[in-house]
Amino acid sequence: MKLFIAQKNYSSWSMRTWILFKAFDLPFQEVLMHYPNEKKQGGVFKEINPAGKVPALLDDDFLIWDTLAIAEYLAEKFPEKKLWPIDFKTRTRARCISAEMHSGFPYLRELCSMNIRANFQNIGKKIWAENIQLHEELTRIEKIWLERPDVNHFLCGDFSIADTFYAPIAIRIKTYGLPVSENTQQYIDKILNHFAVKAWIDDALNDPTLVDYYEIHTENE
Amino acid sequence: MKLFIAQKNYSSWSMRTWILFKAFDLPFQEVLMHYPNEKKQGGVFKEINPAGKVPALLDDDFLIWDTLAIAEYLAEKFPEKKLWPIDFKTRTRARCISAEMHSGFPYLRELCSMNIRANFQNIGKKIWAENIQLHEELTRIEKIWLERPDVNHFLCGDFSIADTFYAPIAIRIKTYGLPVSENTQQYIDKILNHFAVKAWIDDALNDPTLVDYYEIHTENE
Ligand SMILES: N[C@@H](CCC(=O)N[C@@H](CS)C(=O)NCC(=O)O)C(=O)O
Ligand SMILES: N[C@@H](CCC(=O)N[C@@H](CS)C(=O)NCC(=O)O)C(=O)O
Repeated sequence: MKLFIAQKNYSSWSMRTWILFKAFDLPFQEVLMHYPNEKKQGGVFKEINPAGKVPALLDDDFLIWDTLAIAEYLAEKFPEKKLWPIDFKTRTRARCISAEMHSGFPYLRELCSMNIRANFQNIGKKIWAENIQLHEELTRIEKIWLERPDVNHFLCGDFSIADTFYAPIAIRIKTYGLPVSENTQQYIDKILNHFAVKAWIDDALNDPTLVDYYEIHTENE
Repeated sequence: MKLFIAQKNYSSWSMRTWILFKAFDLPFQEVLMHYPNEKKQGGVFKEINPAGKVPALLDDDFLIWDTLAIAEYLAEKFPEKKLWPIDFKTRTRARCISAEMHSGFPYLRELCSMNIRANFQNIGKKIWAENIQLHEELTRIEKIWLERPDVNHFLCGDFSIADTFYAPIAIRIKTYGLPVSENTQQYIDKILNHFAVKAWIDDALNDPTLVDYYEIHTENE
């Protein structure tokens, strides 16, 4: 299986799928695509995916696109790996919070775009002070994380697809220094120390390529 | 099972889940919530769903929220109903296009919000002329629809979850008079004549309640 992703420093959706493959030791070959340096409308990765986005997965000649559909595909293809929790209700909760992330939290995504290398503590304070919607979104995320079965657990017990969906949020909270509770910080520490997440972050730190429009904050920090 | 929805004239996400229940003859009780008359931030339906949105499904005391997670829940709970296509690849395609709708097409959603009772042909022409992003999104949707197995089929063969995700788009194209191909028009006619979609539309037409911020175009038409 070939997994098409974009630069690891910036591509949060690519990250979700890639760490899923890594965490569950699924066989894949990574194909790195590059964001154009100027922001373009309408899907920049059309040559590999008619929807224009990454991640996209090619299994032989069968294309699967969109993180959530890729996750369901892998869960069905490798049932023994238990990518979703095995208990039906727990699995359903995992799907609820994953689907909520998939379509939600527009302010966090837009205002605090992922940039693993960066340290945006000052910009983060400013963004935080100016955007009340961000507070509401983060409150909701903290509530979801707080409801994990135990403070030492992943979101739905063992590491699952749901954690891959929230891992980039942990990175953003750190990069932008968003204020969170101790319980939230414990989840952040746990997820950022997961070997698959660490592997992605290491690769991101070692990638020297820059994408200008994702670095708009850099000169102001 | 109790399904919480908002007014049928406006609530496109509610519609997706409701027509799924109807189309597959799944047992449910509808609970109608009301949008506030002024637009509010941060999820207005918090009293029934911590995520603040409809639809939400209550199965005994177990809450399932977010259309896509509700769809997966029902598909697992009623396997004999075949809510997703039975062939694995066809099912995966159905999930890809459903997930793409779930998180995508922001311009169409924002600029052409659902209003079943309305006829926005003039406003629609203006919106269409002024927003190139809308053209890109509609082109993508037409491509997805064009790829159905046969011109007389639903999106993935028989009626499935995927069609429920795209049904509100058919309504918007009609309401705003967006220009589409003959093949697209054939799918629109087919989906709008499905008995579950017709039942929703009838209810919408018979609901006299107005939500001001969804009627902003009305006085200009
Ligand atoms: N709903 C998609 C979102 C994917 C997405 O937005 N990917 C970004 C990279 S993280 C992308 O490809 N952006 C380029 C574009 O939209 O043109 C998914 O879940 O896979
Ligand atoms: N991702 C959600 C979206 C649901 C959604 O946005 N619902 C609208 C009604 S169609 C809503 O509840 N809006 C009220 C709000 O966001 O405050 C889903 O798929 O269920």
